[in-house]
Amino acid sequence: MRCEVVAVGTELLLGQIVDTNSSWIGEQLALIGIDSLHQVKVGDNFGRMEATIRQALERSDAVICCGGLGPTQDDITREVIAKIMGVEMVRDDAIAAHIRNIFEGRGRPMPENNLRQADVPDGANTIEQMPGTAPGLMCPVGDKMIYAVPGVPHEMREMMEGTVLQDLRRRSGETSVIHSRVIRTWGYGESALAETLADHVNTLDESGHATIAFQASGIEGIKVRVTAKAESHDAAEAIIAAEVELIRKAIGDHIFGYDDETMESVVLDALRDRRLTVAAGESLTGGILASRITALDPAMKVFKGAVVSPVGDLDDEDGAVAAARAARDAIGTDIGIAVIGPRDPEAHPPGTVFAAVALPDSDHAKTVALPGVLSRMRSYAVITLLDLLRKRLA
Amino acid sequence: MRCEVVAVGTELLLGQIVDTNSSWIGEQLALIGIDSLHQVKVGDNFGRMEATIRQALERSDAVICCGGLGPTQDDITREVIAKIMGVEMVRDDAIAAHIRNIFEGRGRPMPENNLRQADVPDGANTIEQMPGTAPGLMCPVGDKMIYAVPGVPHEMREMMEGTVLQDLRRRSGETSVIHSRVIRTWGYGESALAETLADHVNTLDESGHATIAFQASGIEGIKVRVTAKAESHDAAEAIIAAEVELIRKAIGDHIFGYDDETMESVVLDALRDRRLTVAAGESLTGGILASRITALDPAMKVFKGAVVSPVGDLDDEDGAVAAARAARDAIGTDIGIAVIGPRDPEAHPPGTVFAAVALPDSDHAKTVALPGVLSRMRSYAVITLLDLLRKRLA
Repeated sequence: MRCEVVAVGTELLLGQIVDTNSSWIGEQLALIGIDSLHQVKVGDNFGRMEATIRQALERSDAVICCGGLGPTQDDITREVIAKIMGVEMVRDDAIAAHIRNIFEGRGRPMPENNLRQADVPDGANTIEQMPGTAPGLMCPVGDKMIYAVPGVPHEMREMMEGTVLQDLRRRSGETSVIHSRVIRTWGYGESALAETLADHVNTLDESGHATIAFQASGIEGIKVRVTAKAESHDAAEAIIAAEVELIRKAIGDHIFGYDDETMESVVLDALRDRRLTVAAGESLTGGILASRITALDPAMKVFKGAVVSPVGDLDDEDGAVAAARAARDAIGTDIGIAVIGPRDPEAHPPGTVFAAVALPDSDHAKTVALPGVLSRMRSYAVITLLDLLRKRLA
Repeated sequence: MRCEVVAVGTELLLGQIVDTNSSWIGEQLALIGIDSLHQVKVGDNFGRMEATIRQALERSDAVICCGGLGPTQDDITREVIAKIMGVEMVRDDAIAAHIRNIFEGRGRPMPENNLRQADVPDGANTIEQMPGTAPGLMCPVGDKMIYAVPGVPHEMREMMEGTVLQDLRRRSGETSVIHSRVIRTWGYGESALAETLADHVNTLDESGHATIAFQASGIEGIKVRVTAKAESHDAAEAIIAAEVELIRKAIGDHIFGYDDETMESVVLDALRDRRLTVAAGESLTGGILASRITALDPAMKVFKGAVVSPVGDLDDEDGAVAAARAARDAIGTDIGIAVIGPRDPEAHPPGTVFAAVALPDSDHAKTVALPGVLSRMRSYAVITLLDLLRKRLA
């Protein structure tokens, strides 16, 4: 079963609003096993909207139109759908009463314009959920279906979750379930990771039980998404667990976490488990490390603080160790961490930085070359340093 | 002139990544007067990519394909474009050498896969900017043009700004020029700002010389964009200068800067002009202030550092002053700044924070209530504190 998404609104094309609705809908469709092979943005123009929706309907079983259901003259999604259905517009008294109620509830006079929202294509069904003044519509065209939902994200989501996804699922006759898990990795390039797992991926493709996708995500590392389709939740979870175990064996400690875990959350959890506290010396990273970690530990119970200051006289691994120890001793924690750059970057390979972890009984330092301009290097340096600490704690 | 945007990548359809690239490109096209009437997302599938790009090319003068230029087997944008051009793929030795160099610079072995990125359609021109291993391409099809740029946002932007937008503008033959200036404001809500400027905006709409748009941008404040279209650069600039002067008179010191200026850059410039140095005490803001300022002053010549630590015993304006003075004295600067939150937020109105500036001869503190959840409050607190310093320096 295929379902396309058409996002309506000139403001989307002009970049005044980013179309996050289509992404969210795409994710929901994938999770119930419905293919969404095209997603299109189109402006508030009758002819182009009609052509776009007709084309989507031709190559798919259903279309979700998002936006253009408001009260103003440029909100024409209802009229365009009526033309495609080959029907007239009719006033829906129940919707009109609902809209009047909403305005009365707010104690505001209703602009006459708003009743336009109660004019719907003859033969369309109203979606039960209606959190705002825009009604959602289910508009049959032959054996296919156009769903019209508002562009306001929370209104759209309520209708999708309350009606549209279930209706699509019922129409698809699909009984299998789809689960996925994200494996978070650090330290591999995308192609190197793909090469390491290539044989495995090929075997998987043949078995057809699960799929693996790679997603390079900058300072979030490379995400490996394992997706399984099966007859039950338990069966899907079992396939994923087996896959994850195989990948874990292949790439080992390059895996720092799963799903919503981040490098910061993983390191904080490890420190908390071991009842250890940490402080950071920041020169190159200028406070980025502290800002990321304190977002998760705002009361600074585990990460107890940072000293942000220019790099000192030693600009090598020893300098990084000195900065880590200084932060640890100044703030009074068990562990100190620091990453510094050379005073004269020309004297080293591009992107060279020195990272250090000062544990209670030993120091550990590492020199790495990071890619990109300074702003990216700074972010990479933070994760590199946290990864060094993570491996020391493991 | 019309230019469509085709965003390539199955991960976009699955909602794993939100397509911000098309929005950004749409905004840039609008600013140079080029219509972008459709924007499409399509997965990594040869047949669907080919059909989508062909259709875009049919109804527009140019197409920008974004993504699918990576080194892995599912990156097939190059091959699809070659088919549409009706040409073979050829190895570009200059690109191959460039890719090898990038890997050598990082001291990493180059996976053989990566050389796929040097295979380009015969007859395509390389875009000069190449910040990563993915080359940007200009691929003529008859008298139309397909531009291929990477999906990595910063690589895409560098190529768009360095080459593609200029090439499109040249091809469009447009002789009138469009200029715009962004007025950066802080301290107004969007509707309050719009109300203050309402009469003025109505007059403008009638004159037709310039347009004004408001853009609420969170911690960037509210941007007021003035756009003018005229026969010459000088004429457009004159219209804008007159507009900006009128707005300046209406909203005064709520304006902190223009165009690419940020609150940080404005404050740093003011300090630099006055040969003053500053240090920050961060508890509530946990390093965010330092990370934002050191991005502009990485050697810490003006902003000489920060102390990130939990809030002390005094959690009021006096506590903020104490933290500002402590940072100033510990790091040895002319000025100290700090913003703290109450230890018990329940005892104060929601979002209450205390900001302070400790100058060499006087202290200044302010209590404000900031909106939103903690992460937004932290960011707002940084800008509130910098704005307090900005007004003191003015």
